[in-house]
Amino acid sequence: MASTSPSRSPQLRKDSVTNRWVIFSPARAKRPSDFKSKSPANPNPNHECPFCIGHEHECAPEIFRVPPQGPDWKVRVIQNLYPALSREVPDDRATVRSPRDDDDPGPGRVLDGVGFHDVVIESPVHSIQLCDLSPSEIGEVVRAYRRRILQIASYESIKYVQVFKNHGASAGASMSHSHSQMLALPIVPPNVSARIEGMKEYFGQTEKCAICEVRREDLLIDASTHFISVVPFAATFPFEIWIIPRDHSPHFHEIDDEKAVDLGRLLKLMLRKLSLQLNDPPFNFMIQTSPLHIDGSDLSHSHWFLQIVPQLTVVAGFETGSGCYINPVFPEDAAKVLREVNVPM
Amino acid sequence: MASTSPSRSPQLRKDSVTNRWVIFSPARAKRPSDFKSKSPANPNPNHECPFCIGHEHECAPEIFRVPPQGPDWKVRVIQNLYPALSREVPDDRATVRSPRDDDDPGPGRVLDGVGFHDVVIESPVHSIQLCDLSPSEIGEVVRAYRRRILQIASYESIKYVQVFKNHGASAGASMSHSHSQMLALPIVPPNVSARIEGMKEYFGQTEKCAICEVRREDLLIDASTHFISVVPFAATFPFEIWIIPRDHSPHFHEIDDEKAVDLGRLLKLMLRKLSLQLNDPPFNFMIQTSPLHIDGSDLSHSHWFLQIVPQLTVVAGFETGSGCYINPVFPEDAAKVLREVNVPM
Repeated sequence: MASTSPSRSPQLRKDSVTNRWVIFSPARAKRPSDFKSKSPANPNPNHECPFCIGHEHECAPEIFRVPPQGPDWKVRVIQNLYPALSREVPDDRATVRSPRDDDDPGPGRVLDGVGFHDVVIESPVHSIQLCDLSPSEIGEVVRAYRRRILQIASYESIKYVQVFKNHGASAGASMSHSHSQMLALPIVPPNVSARIEGMKEYFGQTEKCAICEVRREDLLIDASTHFISVVPFAATFPFEIWIIPRDHSPHFHEIDDEKAVDLGRLLKLMLRKLSLQLNDPPFNFMIQTSPLHIDGSDLSHSHWFLQIVPQLTVVAGFETGSGCYINPVFPEDAAKVLREVNVPM
Repeated sequence: MASTSPSRSPQLRKDSVTNRWVIFSPARAKRPSDFKSKSPANPNPNHECPFCIGHEHECAPEIFRVPPQGPDWKVRVIQNLYPALSREVPDDRATVRSPRDDDDPGPGRVLDGVGFHDVVIESPVHSIQLCDLSPSEIGEVVRAYRRRILQIASYESIKYVQVFKNHGASAGASMSHSHSQMLALPIVPPNVSARIEGMKEYFGQTEKCAICEVRREDLLIDASTHFISVVPFAATFPFEIWIIPRDHSPHFHEIDDEKAVDLGRLLKLMLRKLSLQLNDPPFNFMIQTSPLHIDGSDLSHSHWFLQIVPQLTVVAGFETGSGCYINPVFPEDAAKVLREVNVPM
């Protein structure tokens, strides 16, 4: 199969996972291999900050550390000092109040802003980035996500946990010390609903999982024992990557220890490839999993994955207004470029 | 009615127009009146560029100018030199091809990337910004949008025209000369579908238009003869503004000449308020209208409006992953601040 598209004409694509049209428009841009970040993620000077080892008292309360005892931690999960939601999560089901009941505020619904907003400090050392860690060290971070989700899952009113990482100031990182965040929400967010709905529809039509079907050779970047990494067929952003478990599994938090390390291996490789190819771009990654408290049999069509998005383009009026994105790099071209990046290990 | 919220606890809100939960989280931020852009839109030095009068030959082909004859134009509509879509729009209905028919590329659909991508040059003079123009001059720009949409509407395969403006480099403007863009699409974009669907649902429940219902006094900023300006009940972004026609009308392009000038008056006032209050922030505005080629009776629940979004926050991993947004300013607080900005006229 040819590794580049036969035609460079603009094209719209929609996949059955995101269920959203994306405009591929290579004419606007340079060659796929010419993409570089103009604002590389801020260098990480070796100063000290509240996330550094020895500064634990400057942080919001700790939830747990790995290993559990003693001062020599590898990973810490703490409360966010500036949480987006209030931690006063009720044990029972949160109620949706309609503001029309009291104050005639026009059409709309209101929900108490309760949930958990936590920070995962990925290393005790300020100058270490996630991709500098070993696969088993990244596996410890992955296991910390899992453990915290399992704790949160005991709250009936929490419907979804969004795990995400912001790397670089222009990707939203306010601290340069390597960390990720977990936001446990009292709602299922819109992209998650749309994804679950899209995959359910595809399953209804084909009796296949839309993610399991993502095995096009020219979109494949690399693979490990338990995961594959691809550029999705209708990637929203240039050089977007999905790391997909080979086994069909709706929930990230069902990952076992061996797979956590294996995910660490492939995630490290992908982050290094992006950094080398795109000039250490700011990036985000997000774990795309399934809502909590839904019976497994209702999620037979769902399959979790990890989405990596380097920040190379500006979200402007067209995208904000329409929700439709313009991607200047065809997925098969991005996959070819990323396959060919040689990572010194 | 109190003009500030009784409580500063985080809250989730969803309105019947965007149909999307937004997290309001004031604890993360400063006081509403303290918001200022850290990267004001680039100053607009008085140099010459292809959009300047006398440089017309450096541009892609002109579609029309106002007035129609002679070198002294006020507004020009031209093709985009780097169009996102190919202009080879068929007169008949564009066909959706499934790539599974030929090449087994996994789940997904493909559509030819055809459509119109035009630029509206809002002034012949480089140093003039849109809000420097008089209401009737802005009215000419509004009439140029209308005229171009009416031309495009003759193509059956164009489903939606997104009018948008990017002001400032970080809001996506690659040229500093004041201009807006129009992207005519062969699909109905996701935010438009969701909005039409949300308003239809609300209409089904209440027999009222969700936009006509947006008349909460504490969300009102200002009004003109034919329009009101509000902060929406579940604003996605801090200091987001909607300018809403008082008359129920699904399509922007039904606007008449008198209303076009009146819209120009209120748009100018809102842009000046944002500029004075928020330190000339980069911004986007988008016309949120209804799809083309849909019978008017099927759009009885729909109502167009103009959305203005100053760029004050970074879209990071949480928003990209979940589609859920965190807004640090409660809409009633933003409306109060904007009401009180004194604009010297």
